[in-house]
Amino acid sequence: MIHEVIVTCRSQEGEDQIAPMGVVWRQGEVVIAPFRPSRTLDNILGGECAVINYCDDVRVFAGCLTGRYDWPLVEAEQVDAPRLVDALAHSEVRLLRVEEDQVRPRLICKPVYQANHRPFQGFNRAQSAVLELAILVSRLERLPAEKIDAEIAYLTIAIDKTAGEREREAWDWLMARVEAFQKQKEDAV
Amino acid sequence: MIHEVIVTCRSQEGEDQIAPMGVVWRQGEVVIAPFRPSRTLDNILGGECAVINYCDDVRVFAGCLTGRYDWPLVEAEQVDAPRLVDALAHSEVRLLRVEEDQVRPRLICKPVYQANHRPFQGFNRAQSAVLELAILVSRLERLPAEKIDAEIAYLTIAIDKTAGEREREAWDWLMARVEAFQKQKEDAV
Repeated sequence: MIHEVIVTCRSQEGEDQIAPMGVVWRQGEVVIAPFRPSRTLDNILGGECAVINYCDDVRVFAGCLTGRYDWPLVEAEQVDAPRLVDALAHSEVRLLRVEEDQVRPRLICKPVYQANHRPFQGFNRAQSAVLELAILVSRLERLPAEKIDAEIAYLTIAIDKTAGEREREAWDWLMARVEAFQKQKEDAV
Repeated sequence: MIHEVIVTCRSQEGEDQIAPMGVVWRQGEVVIAPFRPSRTLDNILGGECAVINYCDDVRVFAGCLTGRYDWPLVEAEQVDAPRLVDALAHSEVRLLRVEEDQVRPRLICKPVYQANHRPFQGFNRAQSAVLELAILVSRLERLPAEKIDAEIAYLTIAIDKTAGEREREAWDWLMARVEAFQKQKEDAV
């Protein structure tokens, strides 16, 4: 089972890093599998720790995909890494071992500290639609134009019916990216 | 902004009721809009209270749509209603006033007690896919066959990639309902 979360970590030089990621729990351990090469991979290998932020603000996911990395951070309790101020909950983890892979090494971590900050507010279909659009945006180059249009038409229904302000803002950031891609493609023809 | 939650309430005769519902928060008040006629509507009008359960177990949503109502309940703290044992958080609310409507009266409620039981674990695309399938199942009679097939094909991707056991079980309950509907339609031809 894959959970979409925000991973925060820090480089040896002290630079904070924030990245959306899908993580998998296996018998009390969590698997983080960042692509090679990436700062997240370097940082967790270097610092041997990270924070998993359980965040329901989809602007953070959409923001990291569209060049908006400036989300409020505070220091974690037990590990040398920042955590998202606005996450509903977070787990601080230490690196146990690495399962090597050419594309996505699996970083097996164990939680050393967890905190529950604010209650879950229930499912929101627009939040899911923003996440699906984020995945679509990360794959624009590989998808046929009709498939992109059809998926967006489908996801737009949930946005129109159920979104709040945060979801609309995140949706607009991602749609600007889609439109720029489509215009670029038209110009190239 | 609409949040999908599980509303629990109790009849004047002491019978517990559990129902998936979309709720909207407006300036510290929450709007529950059950269809007319429904037990949820009768119960909240009668008892003037309810519990909003913030539940990430999609089996409860799919279960209530497929005749599975037997989910563990305990007594609420401040109102005469049950609450879901396994919700991540819950709000106990009292009825303030009713905005009348022929189809869906709006029950305006105010929270009187809230509790945060377990941390949110991050977004899961399969949970969202189950909710979307649940909405599809509730509208089968009104949708063209090709649209049903196309949506299911799309949602299946997230199930295959990201579901855990609870999500697969909920998905299977709903798909059995879709298949029964499709068979019934074929037999009628």
